[in-house]
Amino acid sequence: MFRSAEIGHRLTKQAYRDAVPGLRAALLDAQVSLFEQRKTPVVVLISGQDGAGKGETINVLYEWMDPRFISTLAFSEPSDEERERPPMWRYWRSLPPKGRVGIFAGSWYSDPIRERIQGEISVKELDARAEQINRFEQMLVAEGALVLKFWFHLSKDGQKQRLKALSADPRTAWRVTPWNWERLKTYDQLQEVAGHLLRLTNTAAAPWVVVEGTDDRYLSLTVGKVLLTAISQKLAQTAPPRPPVAPMVRVDLDGRNVLSEMDLSLALADKPYKDQLARWQGRLSELLRDPRFKHRALVCAFEGVDAAGKGGAIRRIAAAMDARQYQVTPVAAPTDEEKAQPHLWRFWRHLPRHGQVAIFDRTWYGRVLVERVEGFCSEADWLRAYGEINDFEHEMIDGGVIVVKFWLQISQEEQLKRFKAREQVAFKRFKITQEDWRNREKWVEYQQAICDMVERTSTGESPWTLVEANDKNFARVKILRTLCHRLEAALQGKAPSATTGADKADKKPAKQEKIGRSASVQKPS
Amino acid sequence: MFRSAEIGHRLTKQAYRDAVPGLRAALLDAQVSLFEQRKTPVVVLISGQDGAGKGETINVLYEWMDPRFISTLAFSEPSDEERERPPMWRYWRSLPPKGRVGIFAGSWYSDPIRERIQGEISVKELDARAEQINRFEQMLVAEGALVLKFWFHLSKDGQKQRLKALSADPRTAWRVTPWNWERLKTYDQLQEVAGHLLRLTNTAAAPWVVVEGTDDRYLSLTVGKVLLTAISQKLAQTAPPRPPVAPMVRVDLDGRNVLSEMDLSLALADKPYKDQLARWQGRLSELLRDPRFKHRALVCAFEGVDAAGKGGAIRRIAAAMDARQYQVTPVAAPTDEEKAQPHLWRFWRHLPRHGQVAIFDRTWYGRVLVERVEGFCSEADWLRAYGEINDFEHEMIDGGVIVVKFWLQISQEEQLKRFKAREQVAFKRFKITQEDWRNREKWVEYQQAICDMVERTSTGESPWTLVEANDKNFARVKILRTLCHRLEAALQGKAPSATTGADKADKKPAKQEKIGRSASVQKPS
Repeated sequence: MFRSAEIGHRLTKQAYRDAVPGLRAALLDAQVSLFEQRKTPVVVLISGQDGAGKGETINVLYEWMDPRFISTLAFSEPSDEERERPPMWRYWRSLPPKGRVGIFAGSWYSDPIRERIQGEISVKELDARAEQINRFEQMLVAEGALVLKFWFHLSKDGQKQRLKALSADPRTAWRVTPWNWERLKTYDQLQEVAGHLLRLTNTAAAPWVVVEGTDDRYLSLTVGKVLLTAISQKLAQTAPPRPPVAPMVRVDLDGRNVLSEMDLSLALADKPYKDQLARWQGRLSELLRDPRFKHRALVCAFEGVDAAGKGGAIRRIAAAMDARQYQVTPVAAPTDEEKAQPHLWRFWRHLPRHGQVAIFDRTWYGRVLVERVEGFCSEADWLRAYGEINDFEHEMIDGGVIVVKFWLQISQEEQLKRFKAREQVAFKRFKITQEDWRNREKWVEYQQAICDMVERTSTGESPWTLVEANDKNFARVKILRTLCHRLEAALQGKAPSATTGADKADKKPAKQEKIGRSASVQKPS
Repeated sequence: MFRSAEIGHRLTKQAYRDAVPGLRAALLDAQVSLFEQRKTPVVVLISGQDGAGKGETINVLYEWMDPRFISTLAFSEPSDEERERPPMWRYWRSLPPKGRVGIFAGSWYSDPIRERIQGEISVKELDARAEQINRFEQMLVAEGALVLKFWFHLSKDGQKQRLKALSADPRTAWRVTPWNWERLKTYDQLQEVAGHLLRLTNTAAAPWVVVEGTDDRYLSLTVGKVLLTAISQKLAQTAPPRPPVAPMVRVDLDGRNVLSEMDLSLALADKPYKDQLARWQGRLSELLRDPRFKHRALVCAFEGVDAAGKGGAIRRIAAAMDARQYQVTPVAAPTDEEKAQPHLWRFWRHLPRHGQVAIFDRTWYGRVLVERVEGFCSEADWLRAYGEINDFEHEMIDGGVIVVKFWLQISQEEQLKRFKAREQVAFKRFKITQEDWRNREKWVEYQQAICDMVERTSTGESPWTLVEANDKNFARVKILRTLCHRLEAALQGKAPSATTGADKADKKPAKQEKIGRSASVQKPS
C-alpha cells in the first residue's frame, strides 16, 4: 500500500506558487456550492505517521478554504460522557451536517491500530473491526456523504529526519515530544498493522489515498487537489449513490406468518394483573438499582400498531423507575438539524449514559415501517436500513447497552374500537388523527413490513418480543416480565455483553422470540 | 417563608381519590395544548429537604401526565465536559424546548445553598448569586417560559419521622443513606440559608411555592393543582409577557459618536504589515500554548459592517492556531431546535471547553443589530437584550472564559467599492446578496444601533474593540495585537478571571476602548 509513497515526490517552490491560487479559488467555489446545495457532508480523515505533516496540512486547508464551513475534530482521551457510551458515539456526535466539511484528526481507525500494536486485540479482532468500519463508512456514503481518507506516509528514515527537523526549528520544537521518538521504535509494527487495516478498508465507497509526507508542498497540493476533484465530482452527481440491493422477495404458501400465529385472545384478569404488575415493577426497580447496572445502560424500543397501547405500557415501566434515571423519547418528524445527518443520527444522540435508561416511543424502525409503506424513502434506502439497524444495535450491545425491543400487536377490530373510544376522550383527542385512519387502510402493507422487519432484525443478541396486546393487562405484564428477564440475564452476563464483535458479526439472525401461548411466564429466547 | 408549611396539612385517602381523576385529565389536556401550541417551555424546579417527598412527587407527576413530553433532569456531579465550562452551561443545555416540560431535580439553587452551608461563600456572595439567578429566571420568563419553583418543606421533627419511616419500609430503605442522617444535623443551617435565598429570589416573574411535605397526598395534589392552574393561565395568555422597558433615548447635539470619531484613514503599508502580522501571529500561537491557557478558554466575537473584512481577519487569527484547537461558528438563521429555545441558547451551546477557542462570525449581538433594525423582534425584546447579553458575557468571564469582541468599521464609500469587487469574483459571489444591498440602504439606522450597542455593552470586563477597517492590513494587525494583549493580561490575572461576581455585578459599564489614532500599538483599556 505504501510503495508508491516512497518515491521521493518533491515540488519546487515555484511549481507550488503557480498552482495554489487557482486551486484555492476552485476550492472556495466548490465549498460554496456544497454549502448552497446542502446535500453532502464531507468527511475527511487525516491519518498517518507522526511528523508526516498532518497538522500542517490541516492548517493549509484552512488557509485555502473558508474556515466557517469546516470543523476539525481531534479525538484524544474520551470525556466521561463519551466513555459511558458505545465507542462510536463520539464520532456520530461529531459528524458534519450536510453542506459542511468535517476534518477528523484521529478517527475510528485510531483505536483499532493502537490496540493491535499494544497487543490488546488479535488479528482476528482487528479484522472484525475493519468489517465494522467498512459497514459504517458504507452507510455514510449511502446517506450521501463524501468520505475521503488520507494516510500520510513516511519511510522510517524520512520520519526520523522530519522529527529532527521539527526539533531543530524553535518554532516547531514544542511539537516533538519524547513520546514521538518513542513511537519511532514501533515504526515497523505501525506499518504492518496500518497496512493490513488499510488494505481491508480500502473500499470502493471510501478508498484510501496514501500520500508521501516527505515534502510539505507536495503533500498539501496533493490533498487539496484530491479534495477539489472529489467534491466537484460529487457536486456533479445528479442521482444519489445507490448501493446494489436485492429486491424483497417473500413467498407465502399458507398465509401464516409471525403475526398470524400470535394468539391475540390472551388475557389477564384484573386481580392477577394487579399482583403481577406490582411483582414485576418491584423486580424491575430492584434490577435497575443493582450495582452491576451502574456500568450498563438500558434501551427500550417500543413499536406497534397504532393504538396498541405503547403509551400505557411505557407508563407502567416508568412507574417502576426513578424519574431521574430515564428519558422517554417520542419519535416524531426529524428536526432540520436531524435531517442534515444520517437517518440513525437522531437515535444515537439520545443514547443513555451508564446507569441510565432510554425509552423510545417509536424508533429507528420507522424507516422500514412507515417510511417504507408511505414511500417517504426509496426502496434502496429502506432495504439497506435492515443491515444498518442491526449494526446500530450491535454497536450498542457491544458497548454494554442492554437493548430490548417490543412489537405490540392488536387485531383490526380492536384497533377500530380503540380509535372510536379515543375520539370521545378530551385528553386523548391528540392521539387520533386523520393520519391514523389513513394508516389503517394500509393494514396489509404494514403487516407485510412488520413481518419483514422481524425476519431481518430479530437477531440473537437483539431479539424482538412480539406482544399480544388486545388485552392491555396481558400486554403490560408480558412487557415488564420480559424486560426483567432480559435485564437479569444481561447482568448475570448471560446475554451478549461488552466484547468486540469478532464472532458475533457472522451470526445469522436467530429465530425471533417464541410467541406467548398462555398467560404464564414467557422466557425470552 | 416556611411558617405556612408547618400547619400539618393532611388529605384523606378519599379526598385524594376523588380529586385525582379530574386533575389528571385536565393536566393531560393542558399538556397536549402546550405541545400543540409550542410557545411555552415549562421549567419546574423541585427542591426542598431530604425526605420531603421530592422523588415521590416527580413520580406521581409522571403517572398523571404524558411522560413523552416531560424530561427530568438530575444534576449530580458535573461531567468533565460540564466542569470545563461556565457553571450555568449544564442548565442551559438541559432547558426544555417550547411545548415541553422540564423537571429539574436539583437546579441552579443547589450549589449556592451548599456552598453557603459549607462556608465556601459569604452572605454577600450568596446575595450576588441570588441576583444572578433572578436575572436568569427573568430572562427565561421574558422568552416565554413558565418557571415554577417548588420548595418542599418539613419541620425538623417531620424530617426525622420521614427518614425513619423510609428506613423502616423495605421498599424505600435503600433511599436513606448515612448522608441523609448527616444532613439532618445541618437542618437549622439549611433552613436559614434556604430561607434567605428563597426570599431574595421570590420574584413576581418566578415566585416560589412552598409546600408542606408531611403528607404525600397533600403534597402531590398541591403540586399538581399549581401546575395545572399555572399552565392553563399561561395558555390563556394571548400576548407574550413584556417586562417594562424604558424607551431608547439619545440626544445628539454635535453629530459626534464613537463611530464618527474613528479615523478610518489609518493604514499600514505592506512591508510593516508582513512583519507585524508574523510577529503577532507568533505571539498568539505562543500564548495559546501557554500552560495557563489549559484552564481557560477564549471566545472571539466578530461583528462589523457588511464587507468590513471579518472573514479575512478570522483567517489571519486562525492561521496562528492549531486547527484542532478552535472552531469557527458562522451565525446564520437559527435552526428549529434553536428557535424553540431562548435567543442566547444557540451561543451557549458553542462555548469552548478549557484550552479551546471559539470564534463567532457574527454573534449574540444580532438581536440588537439586524433584529432591531429589521424589526425581527419587538422593541421590548431588543431593549432587554443588552442586559441579557451583559449577563451572558459576565457568566462566561466568571467561568474563566476570555471574551474579546471586535467591531469592524468601514466607510460607506469603501463598502460600495468592496461590494462591486465581490460581484466580480466567482468564489466571493455568495458573500454579496440582495440583502447586503438592502442593508446598505439602512446605513443610518445601523450606525445608530451600533452606537447604542457599544454604549450599553462595552463593559469593563468585556470591552468592545472598534477596528478601523478601511485598510485591511491595519485592521488585521490591530485585531491580532489586541487579542494578544487581552490574552496576556488575562493569563497574568490582570483581566477579570474566575471569581464570583459579587463585586463586579455592581460595576458600571466602563468607557469603551480608546479608539486607535495611529498605527502604533493600542493597549486595550
